[in-house]
Amino acid sequence: SVDTTPITATLFPGDGIGPEIADSVKQVFRAADVPIEWEEHYVGTEVDPRTQSFLTWESLESVRRNRVGLKGPMATPIGKGHRSLNLTLRKELNLYANVRPCYSLPGYKTRYDNVDLITIRENTEGEYSGLEHQVVRGVVESLKIITRQASLRVAEYAFHYAKAHGRERVSAIHKANIMQKTDGLFLKCCREVAEKYPEIKYEEVVIDNCCMMLVKNPALFDVLVMPNLYGDIISDLCAGLIGGLGLTPSCNIGEGGIALAEAVHGSAPDIAGKVYMGEHDRVKDLWRHLIWSVTCSDEAQVLAAYILCGLILQNLANPTALMLSAVTMLRHLELHGKADRIQNAILNTIAEGKYRTADLGGTSTTTDFTKAIIDHL
Amino acid sequence: SVDTTPITATLFPGDGIGPEIADSVKQVFRAADVPIEWEEHYVGTEVDPRTQSFLTWESLESVRRNRVGLKGPMATPIGKGHRSLNLTLRKELNLYANVRPCYSLPGYKTRYDNVDLITIRENTEGEYSGLEHQVVRGVVESLKIITRQASLRVAEYAFHYAKAHGRERVSAIHKANIMQKTDGLFLKCCREVAEKYPEIKYEEVVIDNCCMMLVKNPALFDVLVMPNLYGDIISDLCAGLIGGLGLTPSCNIGEGGIALAEAVHGSAPDIAGKVYMGEHDRVKDLWRHLIWSVTCSDEAQVLAAYILCGLILQNLANPTALMLSAVTMLRHLELHGKADRIQNAILNTIAEGKYRTADLGGTSTTTDFTKAIIDHL
Ligand SMILES: CC(C)[C@H](C(=O)O)[C@@H](O)C(=O)O
Ligand SMILES: CC(C)[C@H](C(=O)O)[C@@H](O)C(=O)O
Repeated sequence: SVDTTPITATLFPGDGIGPEIADSVKQVFRAADVPIEWEEHYVGTEVDPRTQSFLTWESLESVRRNRVGLKGPMATPIGKGHRSLNLTLRKELNLYANVRPCYSLPGYKTRYDNVDLITIRENTEGEYSGLEHQVVRGVVESLKIITRQASLRVAEYAFHYAKAHGRERVSAIHKANIMQKTDGLFLKCCREVAEKYPEIKYEEVVIDNCCMMLVKNPALFDVLVMPNLYGDIISDLCAGLIGGLGLTPSCNIGEGGIALAEAVHGSAPDIAGKVYMGEHDRVKDLWRHLIWSVTCSDEAQVLAAYILCGLILQNLANPTALMLSAVTMLRHLELHGKADRIQNAILNTIAEGKYRTADLGGTSTTTDFTKAIIDHL
Repeated sequence: SVDTTPITATLFPGDGIGPEIADSVKQVFRAADVPIEWEEHYVGTEVDPRTQSFLTWESLESVRRNRVGLKGPMATPIGKGHRSLNLTLRKELNLYANVRPCYSLPGYKTRYDNVDLITIRENTEGEYSGLEHQVVRGVVESLKIITRQASLRVAEYAFHYAKAHGRERVSAIHKANIMQKTDGLFLKCCREVAEKYPEIKYEEVVIDNCCMMLVKNPALFDVLVMPNLYGDIISDLCAGLIGGLGLTPSCNIGEGGIALAEAVHGSAPDIAGKVYMGEHDRVKDLWRHLIWSVTCSDEAQVLAAYILCGLILQNLANPTALMLSAVTMLRHLELHGKADRIQNAILNTIAEGKYRTADLGGTSTTTDFTKAIIDHL
């Protein structure tokens, strides 16, 4: 049957804690007899000694050939002049939609119960155009680009997703009262697509109002679709509602059916954020100290995040987000039996509460937590 | 003493529920013997029959002359081609900083306790430049403008505010990992100003991460300063933490010491949002019905909001945000005695819980709630 045909999938373990959590995924997949063979490539912010490269052509070709892959965190240094590897992958592989399901984990208490949201983010343009320049000294501008083609494409994906997953409503998030032309075009495209899906309810919500409503009552929303930057902001807000980026899966969809699942606690600022948030007390104190003693320059922040990841987070990382992302990859491959089995094992381990990593208030190492998931398979 | 010298202040009651809640403020100010004479002008989305205008030169001159004013809500129709009146006032009066204190109201329970945040938003440029155009068919762009002058000015205001109010920390919110030049310049300016205030801690937080941290643990922040759009988003998110825009004051600071306090539940989309959020059940049902039956076009939304405000919210509106904004105006005038007296009366009325408007889950009319505040003076 489908469940036993071996499939080749690309694996980019990534930076920092990436290799550790990718290793957890591999262990769990092996234990669950998932018929996947990993084709592993290094992509990251250090030059790979074997290839002398951050990102090789072979790595990109691997995803293009396999059409399915899993990606660990990659740091995005601020203000270094070179483009983020996350963005480079999105661009090179034309990963036009970023899908982040965000649901409350049974047994893991936050201020919100029964969160069940899907954010779908346009992933290729908008404020991420990379077009910026200085007009005169002291005056800089950046361009936000919205195209009909990319807006229709992501709207189409959102409605298709909603229908395929039995969802009721799609909300388009925008600021068209201010950016009438750019966000206006985005909305126009969403409306066009909405007409083809009369069974799905459609509404438009201004981004500031959306954020207020989300923190007051997330149950008001279902599937949210939006331009790039709003998606970046709102998907993190949603992750916060259920406990943070360490718990939320993410999958990038590209032209021609490519799916690249990824853990989104990726960049150094994100890791720094997680540390800073006191998800682990020892690290928090150290981080606070570092942040102030080095007067907080970008370089120091990035450096500090590396040191902390390398020295302190060793075997303390939570592989949940990457593992749940890997589950979305299995669903993309229609391996629903395997996907359910692994997802349940993860959720049950967290619900049971005996083995939890430091970020969830526990004391388990990555190794122990992974073993517990395997025991729950 | 200062507290009895009569001061002239401009009053723009605004649209929809504006006149009702402005009336509450006037009543409370009268009862508390606040030495203010109101100079009232109509500014709003309907043409004033007396002046045949939305916004007269005299209205602007009134604020310029008095240097202090209070402004009710004004609707911003989406996609109408004409500029929002809120934005016009910001631009004409050069209101460069928007300050929104956001604190938990004793006795009014939300998911968050002890919230105490100040958002300071650059109010004149960024994504609000109004510069947009179609490049070719199906490709539109909008310009985000960041200037050294405006960034320094708002950063200076934020640090000054932090120092004057005994605050510990200023966080600059940005997305400089993507918009390296624009947000990069904003951060550079914040850093320059931070150096002049060694007693105030300074940090930089990426906006997506900031939103996640805010919903997980708002106590991590103190004063937040940011470019225009991020301020719009984050101030609404913060308002959501403590119960919504109906409870949060706002004050706009302009060159030459102008202060224009305003309720920010202003535009039609915002009002629509509040209604939609189920803050009042009868309205919610009607609104839901209207929203779907008219297939949700912008015109219909705006129209529906008007009808609902006019017919249904009559005497149901919550004057708290406008009244607390008026209090910030009193503080700007250094009338701290009066400010304390009125603020305490508002907070005590809400804490007591006997008189609450529908949006706070009560059944009081605006009139009853206002009377209760006067009784608590
Ligand atoms: C690291 C950063 C460039 C990235 C983004 O802004 O898209 C991240 O926040 C994300 O959401 O994947
Ligand atoms: C109504 C709208 C134009 C306005 C804004 O975007 O600034 C509002 O949301 C606000 O925050 O005052």
